[in-house]
Parts: sequence; C-alpha cells; structure tokens
Amino acid sequence: MFQIFDVRGDRAASAGRIAALRDRLKEENLDGFVVPHADEHQSEYLPPSAERLAWLTGFTGSAGSAIVLHDEAAVFVDGRYTLQATAEVDPAAASVVAVAETPPGKWLSARLRPGDRVGYDPWLFTLAEARKLGKRCADVGASLVPVTANPIDAIWTRRPAAPLGPVELHPQGLAGEGIPDKLRRIATRLGEKKADALLLAHADAIAWTFNIRGSDVAHNAAPLAFAIIRREGRPQLFIDARKLSNAVRSALADVADIAEPSALLAAIEAEAGSKRRVLADPEGIPAALGDRVTTAGGVLVEGEDPTALLKARKNTAEIDGARRAHLRDGLALVRFLAWLDRESPRGEVDEIGAIEALERFRIAAAHDDGSALVDISFDTMAGSGPNGAIIHYRVNRATNRKLDQDSLFLIDSGGQYRDGTTDVTRTVAIGTPTAEMRDRFTRVLRGHIGVARARFPAGTSGVQIDVLARIPQWEAGLDYDHGTGHGVGSFLSVHEGPQRLSKTGHVALEPGMILSNEPGSYRTGAYGIRIENLMVVTPAAAIPGGERPMLGFETLTLAPIDLRLVDAAQMTRPERDWLNAYHARVRAAHAKRLSPEDRAWLEDATRAI
Amino acid sequence: MFQIFDVRGDRAASAGRIAALRDRLKEENLDGFVVPHADEHQSEYLPPSAERLAWLTGFTGSAGSAIVLHDEAAVFVDGRYTLQATAEVDPAAASVVAVAETPPGKWLSARLRPGDRVGYDPWLFTLAEARKLGKRCADVGASLVPVTANPIDAIWTRRPAAPLGPVELHPQGLAGEGIPDKLRRIATRLGEKKADALLLAHADAIAWTFNIRGSDVAHNAAPLAFAIIRREGRPQLFIDARKLSNAVRSALADVADIAEPSALLAAIEAEAGSKRRVLADPEGIPAALGDRVTTAGGVLVEGEDPTALLKARKNTAEIDGARRAHLRDGLALVRFLAWLDRESPRGEVDEIGAIEALERFRIAAAHDDGSALVDISFDTMAGSGPNGAIIHYRVNRATNRKLDQDSLFLIDSGGQYRDGTTDVTRTVAIGTPTAEMRDRFTRVLRGHIGVARARFPAGTSGVQIDVLARIPQWEAGLDYDHGTGHGVGSFLSVHEGPQRLSKTGHVALEPGMILSNEPGSYRTGAYGIRIENLMVVTPAAAIPGGERPMLGFETLTLAPIDLRLVDAAQMTRPERDWLNAYHARVRAAHAKRLSPEDRAWLEDATRAI
Repeated sequence: MFQIFDVRGDRAASAGRIAALRDRLKEENLDGFVVPHADEHQSEYLPPSAERLAWLTGFTGSAGSAIVLHDEAAVFVDGRYTLQATAEVDPAAASVVAVAETPPGKWLSARLRPGDRVGYDPWLFTLAEARKLGKRCADVGASLVPVTANPIDAIWTRRPAAPLGPVELHPQGLAGEGIPDKLRRIATRLGEKKADALLLAHADAIAWTFNIRGSDVAHNAAPLAFAIIRREGRPQLFIDARKLSNAVRSALADVADIAEPSALLAAIEAEAGSKRRVLADPEGIPAALGDRVTTAGGVLVEGEDPTALLKARKNTAEIDGARRAHLRDGLALVRFLAWLDRESPRGEVDEIGAIEALERFRIAAAHDDGSALVDISFDTMAGSGPNGAIIHYRVNRATNRKLDQDSLFLIDSGGQYRDGTTDVTRTVAIGTPTAEMRDRFTRVLRGHIGVARARFPAGTSGVQIDVLARIPQWEAGLDYDHGTGHGVGSFLSVHEGPQRLSKTGHVALEPGMILSNEPGSYRTGAYGIRIENLMVVTPAAAIPGGERPMLGFETLTLAPIDLRLVDAAQMTRPERDWLNAYHARVRAAHAKRLSPEDRAWLEDATRAI
Repeated sequence: MFQIFDVRGDRAASAGRIAALRDRLKEENLDGFVVPHADEHQSEYLPPSAERLAWLTGFTGSAGSAIVLHDEAAVFVDGRYTLQATAEVDPAAASVVAVAETPPGKWLSARLRPGDRVGYDPWLFTLAEARKLGKRCADVGASLVPVTANPIDAIWTRRPAAPLGPVELHPQGLAGEGIPDKLRRIATRLGEKKADALLLAHADAIAWTFNIRGSDVAHNAAPLAFAIIRREGRPQLFIDARKLSNAVRSALADVADIAEPSALLAAIEAEAGSKRRVLADPEGIPAALGDRVTTAGGVLVEGEDPTALLKARKNTAEIDGARRAHLRDGLALVRFLAWLDRESPRGEVDEIGAIEALERFRIAAAHDDGSALVDISFDTMAGSGPNGAIIHYRVNRATNRKLDQDSLFLIDSGGQYRDGTTDVTRTVAIGTPTAEMRDRFTRVLRGHIGVARARFPAGTSGVQIDVLARIPQWEAGLDYDHGTGHGVGSFLSVHEGPQRLSKTGHVALEPGMILSNEPGSYRTGAYGIRIENLMVVTPAAAIPGGERPMLGFETLTLAPIDLRLVDAAQMTRPERDWLNAYHARVRAAHAKRLSPEDRAWLEDATRAI
C-alpha cells in the first residue's frame, strides 16, 4: 500500500549504464535509442521490471523519457519534474531537458544526420507515438528502427522479474454483466466498424471484458495481459499461466482460449494472414502489434477501443457498488478528519504521519464493513503549506513537512475496494486561515458546486461542464492549470477514459459514467486548495416547465468540506442550499457508526450555514 | 438590398432538365452526377450563375445538394428546408431526402454497383469533400470522377453571366494595415509551415489580403477572385479585369501581378512544376486546384489558411470602424423600434413592412452620418409569432404575417458599412407577453449577459464561453439548437471563422476578434426569442487580487433590449447592473440625435430596473 517514495534510481551508476547501452547500439548499428517511461500495456503505473528509464538514467518520476545518442544523452521531463530530474540525473551522463521547450522529437531531429538510424522498442511505443517520432526522423533523412529485443534488458543485471500477481474472478454481482454479454456487445461494435477482431493491450480493457482482477501493478487492479476479441468465434486471452489458479483458469476457459503472451504475435499473424480486418486503437496498441497486423497481410482498422466507452458507462450493479465503497471510504475520511482536528494542534503531525493514519482508518472501516481495502488507488498526495501548491506532490523523507499552525493541508487519496474505486481530496485549515485562503477556498467550493448541481442536455461534453467550475475563479482573475475531472473505474484504474472534464473533454457525458469533480487553487510557496468528490452521471429529475430530458450528477463521495474555510457571504442561496444538503447526507450516512467523540465532531463539521 | 425571397426555381421544368443532364452523362460515360450548392470560392451566398442546384431541381434553399443517377434522383436538405424542398421539388423528378437520416454519401453508396462512375465538378467540391465522397464510392467499388466541364452548364440555356461587380480599394485608414505588411505576415506563417506559396480561393481571404472590396455577391463585400501568395516574390491575383478600374488596377499592380482567372491552373502548374511546397486548406480549396498541385509535381501542404486568423484579429482601425458602424446602426435600430411601438398597435405592420422600414432607417442613419449603407449584411430574418420559431426563417409573400397583438416579433438584421459589418437581433413584445414568454426571454437575456460580462484567461476557446449562455436555460430544462456566436468580418462576411462560440468552437479567443452573442429560445408554432449583440474580445481591466491577465468582451451593438419582456426578479444584482449600464450606454450614444418623440421613447425603453 503506502510506500514512501524514496529514490530508487542509482545516480552514480547511470554513466556506466549509458556507456554499456552505447556499446550494444554499436553492435546493432544504431546511432541512438529512445527510452520511454512505459510498459507493453501503456500502464499508468509500471511494474519494477519496466522501470528502464529509472534504471538507465536515475530519473524516477512518473512521466518522462530519454534519448541516448553516441555523443550525447538527454532526459525529457515536464515542469513538475524539472527539480527532481536535476537532482537525480548525473549531468556527466545526461542533460535534463524541459519538454515544453524542447520535445524529444525536436531535440532528436536537430541532432540527426541523413542516414542515421535511431532504435526504439516497438512494444513500448504506441502506433501513434512511433509514427509521430518516425516522421520527425524521416523529415531529416534519418530513420526510426524497431529493435527486436530491448538492448537495455540485455545489460540490466538483476532486473526484477515480471510481476505474477494472482488473478481473481470479479463476481458477476459486482460486475453486473457476464462475459458472454460483454463479448456480444463488443461484437456489435466490431460489426459497425466492419472489423473481424479487436486487439487489446490495455490491462483495464481486458480486466473489464473478462471480469478479472489482479495485482501485477501497484494501485491498479487489472492484471497485465493481451487479448484478441472476435466478432465471431472465441476470444483469446494471452496471460502468464502462473497467475491463474486452476479455478480461475477453468472459469476463463469456458469463454476464451487461454495462451501465453509469447503466443500473441503468432496469433496475430494467423488472424491477419487470412486478410481479416483487425480493429486497434493507434493511441493504445503497441506499434509491434499494429505493425504485425499489416506486415502479415491483414487490414488494420484504426479506431477507438470500443471497450473504453462500454466500460465507462457503469451499470446498476457497479453504481450500487460505488455507493457502498464511498460509504465505507467516507467513514474512514470522517474519522481521519476528526483525528486530524484533535491531533494537529499539538504540532506533531507531518505529511507521512497523516498518510499513514488515513490508511489505517481506511483499513479499519473496510474491515468493520466486512470488506477489505485491497489497495490504495494511487500514491496519496499530502501537501502541508507550500507542498500543497505542488500539484503532483508525492512526499518523501526529504520533503516531509509538519502541519504548521495557520496553514492549509491538502490530502488527495483513494481506495481500491472490490465494489469500487474511490478518489477524494480535502483541504483542511490547520489553525486560523487567512481571508485570502477563505476567499480562494470558497471560490473553489462554488466551482465544485456549480458542477455538482449542473443540469445539462444529452450530448453535453466534458469541456462544457469544466467551465462551470472555473466561473467563480475567472470572475476574480484566477484559474487553475489542470482539468476539473477525470473518469474513474469500477475496482479498476482511478484514471479512466474516455470521459473527462477538461479542455480536451470532447466525449459526451452519459448516464453511468463516474467522474471526479476537483477544481483547485494554488499559491506557489504558500498553499494549495482542492476539493474533490466523485460523481456519477444520472438522468436528472424532471424540471417543471422543462422541455428536454436533462442529465445531472449524483455525488458519491461522503465526507465533510471544511466550513472554517467557507465564506458564506460569497455564496448564493442555491450554493449554500447544496452545501447544507450535502452535509446533511454526510451526517446521516455516518453518524450511527461513529464514536460519540467523532459524532460530535461531525455534527459540528456538517452544521448548516 | 432587401429582396423578397420568392421562388426562383422552375418546378415544372426540372424533370426535363434532369433528363437532359442524364443524356449528357451518358455521353460522358457517367452513371451519376453530384450537384452541390456551391461556387468555386465556397461562398456563403452564390451568384445567380452558380445556382445550378436551383436551376436543375427547383430547390432554392441556401444549403443542400442533389445526386442524379440514371434511374433515380434525390435532393438532400437539412431539417429547416424539408417543407420548402417538398413544395419546390417535383416528386416525379427527384425525391427529397433528409440529410440527418440519409447523408448523400450513404444514399449513393447504397445504390452504386462496382465499376460505376459518378461525376463531380472539382471546382465546386473542396479537397476534403471530394475525398470523403470518393471514399464512399471506393468502398463499394465505384469511382468518383472529376468532370472537365460542368455538364449542367452545357444544358443551362439563359444561364446568368458571372457577376462583374466593380472592385474598390479598401482605404488603409479603415483597413489599418497596408498590403505589404499583410503579405509579410503571411510570408512568416508560410515560413513556419516550410511552404513556398499559399493558394487562396475564399473571396474574404483575398479581399482582406489585398485591401479590396467588391459587389459580386449579395450582402458580401468581397470580390470573387483567386490568389497565389508567395513566401518570396510577388503574389498573383486572378480576377476578371473587367471588374478593375484603371486606378484600382494600377494600385494593385504595385504589389501584385494581375491575371485572369483562366490563367490560374497554368500558374499552379508553374509553381508546382518546380517542386515547390504549396499550402492550401483542404476544407476551403477546390479539389481542382489541390489536385493540380499534386499532379504537376508540387507538394501540397495541407493546413489552415493563415489569413483566417490574421483577418479575425481586428486591429485598432478596424475596431474603431466597427464602433462607428454600430453607433450608426444602433441609431437606425432605435428609430425602428420606436416606430414599431407606435405602429404595431394599429395592426397593419407585417414582416415585410417591418423589414422595409428598418432598411429605410438604416439608409437614413448612414446618410445623416455622412456614410452610406453599402448593403444589408444578410437577408433580414423577421418572424412574427410562430414564424419567429423557425430559426432560419426568410419571409416570402406566402408566409408573410401581420404582427399580431400579444405575440412576439423577432427581427435579425445587419448592415454593411465601409467601416464595419453589423448583425443584431431584437425580440419585441407586440401587446402583452405571457408569463412564459417573459420567463424565457429573461433566461435568454441572462445567458447573453453571462457571455457579455465574462472574464476568461488567454487560451479560452469558444466552446467554453458558449456554455455561459446556456446555464440559465439548462437550469430550467431548456436549451437551443444553434451556436451562441459566430465571427464577423470588417466590411466583409457576416459569418467569419475560425472563431465561434459553439460546441465546435475550438479556436482560442484573442483580442480583436469580433463575435456575435445570440442565445435564443424557441417554441414551435408559438414564438421565437433571440437577443444578439456583436462584441469584440478585449484585454479585461485588471481585477484587484487577480493573478492572471484576463480577457473579456466589449459589446459593440447599441440598441435597447425590450424591458417589457424582462422579469427583473429572476435576475441577480450583477445581471441587472449589466443591463442598466448597457442601457445607459445606449441612451448616451443616441439621445442627442433623436427627435423629441423618439428620445422620450428611448428614455423609457432604457430606464434602470
């Protein structure tokens, strides 16, 4: 579960490792090699065996890449990782480059000469990524060359083994739909696309389709696997047999042919060799697989993975499960927030202590509920004072701060339960907040409420809803530099597409989609504010005089919002009504299960304003 | 200027004309022919010589297309034209098909057999359109074949001549920028795209680049022409010499080579033959031109026309001109609205009478201002009662309605002045409005105000602003089925891209862009409501405590909004403040130039609420 994010990279070793890589490149007649932060499934979190970027360069951030040429090497990072990369990467081995100014393709094309050959691992690049970088190389007369085996793996001694987390069946009572029905719905989509088969590499897509869960990768409940789904005929699931118990294997064998991942390429060739049309998402499928369809004579139909939208629209069983998970998760939050209010005045709580306490409350609440916290759903972000202003902050022992008096504490966390995935952020006043903090918090809250109580017609997309959260900030000359919400899986990834509330949210919101609602406000060097609840899209209650069926949101998260930070005078009557009704729901949900002390705390924390 | 839109098609003749077309197709070994409503410049309004669709089928709407096969023909129209097309098209000659259910490509591919050859005029299709339809044909083994001469022209006896409206120079005092500076800025964009030349076919783009105006097409001030702009070297302007006076020709010859449009293809071949890179917008350039670049050996660089964004960002001279045009136009509106309030109770005003009166007021106000109304900027939409609910309603003698007591009257109109183009919609209570009318009007007004007083950071796009106009309607279960705003030219087209406020408005709003703000509400068979002002994007005044530079809108239109339709109780204090401040501006702008009677009317019409 919680692991303090201490540096895993080995700064001193990177120069030697890069030199060893260069030797390999020479043997393969390559002038360079590109190292992404990715695995074969485009997973958000990587298994240790896929942490090639960290092993090679020392850089351990969650996003970035490297390019090694014979006379130069660079690590590319975005703004949030500039400082970390500078600390982790040995400047004698590689320079740190800001992607915003110099993206890898630009850096590369400025250095390549006609005829140069740059290697890449086609299992770690999506089709779209490989094409884009290939074009940059071709523009200067060089070529991007797929390697048959990753040269890093050949020199990486003591590379961790690939994970073998046991696979479990996700019961139909929680999934709400059996595998045959899911396969039928996928087949219908394939028919619409005139495709014979669908190629899947995303772990979440496969876990949803086959109603399985696993534990290969931290925080993500989907086992690593590949699959070929057919319009007609049995699907094939490519998964390491060691992850399957006899019972699981037997259940899966009822609906699918099970094979080792090593059999995947041959299966694609068999499929493509008969000139069949194979659907794959160029943004998600490894280039190695997409290219194989074409070279084997098949027709690659490029399009969105149809399971993404099917998975995003949760059914009744999944929504009911989410409600139960949030009840449990909210109880843990309430106990944590009450504990924090008691403990923080003593001045001894720090970020790591808060994270550990919250995890204990989550484990206990799940246990009392007869359930279990399977995992946290992502590395908890807990930022005291100025650390709260670092949007993707992860504490380590060097950055760990006490919760100072008269500061703000932001904590963003979530749990993986078998019936649902949660994600919640609360910002808490430690001591007495300033008027500015209260003004900003109230604007964030009003934006949050603007989204939560929105009514909107079918066809409305996330970019349209995103604005509702920003209006109170725009009015004051403020804004925040992240989206307002992301999709969330059902006991799957805490970040799930295609739905999102942001400038790039072009997918229409549909009933059953679960999204976060998390506007924020950040003052660098001082504090961060964010209020995050999860919501599910629902048909809205009929509005008297209304002419069109409208959609709305049901808020799932059930935890109090800090009233000490609310300036009620800034809020409209409907905004205050929403907050009071929400707090009444929170109180009713948890009061009976709390100790008298915590219950009294909750009564006060959820009083009407 | 105003022309009553009586049917120009000849219903009885269409069967014979279609038969004659089929004979031509047989001679050319074609199995069908596609007839779009378009000219070579993708003009919004067509010159009579380009009204091939109306001549052939009798259908006179502003959007649609036809496909003629040997045993079947169809006219494709959108929802607003279904009734009109059914009345205009002889069912023995062609069926009327709703594009929403059966788009032309789908209709065609369901009827074609492998080997069939369908003709199209590559001058009337954009590259993108030709590719899309060509793909539909190829999918069923047929082919889409460009014709070298449009077969309709060969059978169209008494076809009107192409227009020869005289070209005028647009003075630098109004344009705000000389031609050499514009050419330099285009050349910079070409450099960024690594293109040697830009191919232009849109009349507005050429008028902007060369600071010329004309009168080839009703309501549009841009002369029909083509151009090749070069990164280095002189541009070429392809325009019928008969449109140029000696003075205009001489002025243009200082900066460009002038040639006849018939010399265009040879010029493209010369350009492309030297393997140069030619930029063209596939959504705007005729397929005939784009294809010629490629077949002649050039590299077609597909991308947005860079003049679109340059033209959209109005400079100070253009914005000042717009302010003057709106002052003049608003004065005409005030006099018209005062006249309407005096006349309509007598029960004799009808839609046509109102349109004619408004045009008289526009002509007079411009004359008194020492200026001139060059044209109206589009066919005035004047809808009494239920006609107001027809979003694209154009009156004709058959549909003309009196302005009934206790109804709403919607009038959407605009003027072309040398210093600017206007577009304004007002909805007026005739007699006593119902509570529902007032509720809906107030929601429309609140949406309008939400846009008008918005503050937003740089990078905000039109789709984000569009939502602000819908919130008061969504709250009540209502919505409207059109965008909230379109770009507007400077003495150019009243519809101008790339900026727009709508679901497809993905372009960031930038200072100087002029946009309409026109939310609406429609009850079929009863009434239509729309409130439209033009606005210019401006840097917003600094907000105390604000952290980011924000943008906002300055409203340009200066005409009262009918207070009899406003339910002040529904509005917030800031909304009422905006309306009162706006009305104070309107009063101050016009009071001195009004007769005592009109001034008294304006005082009352703009009283604070």
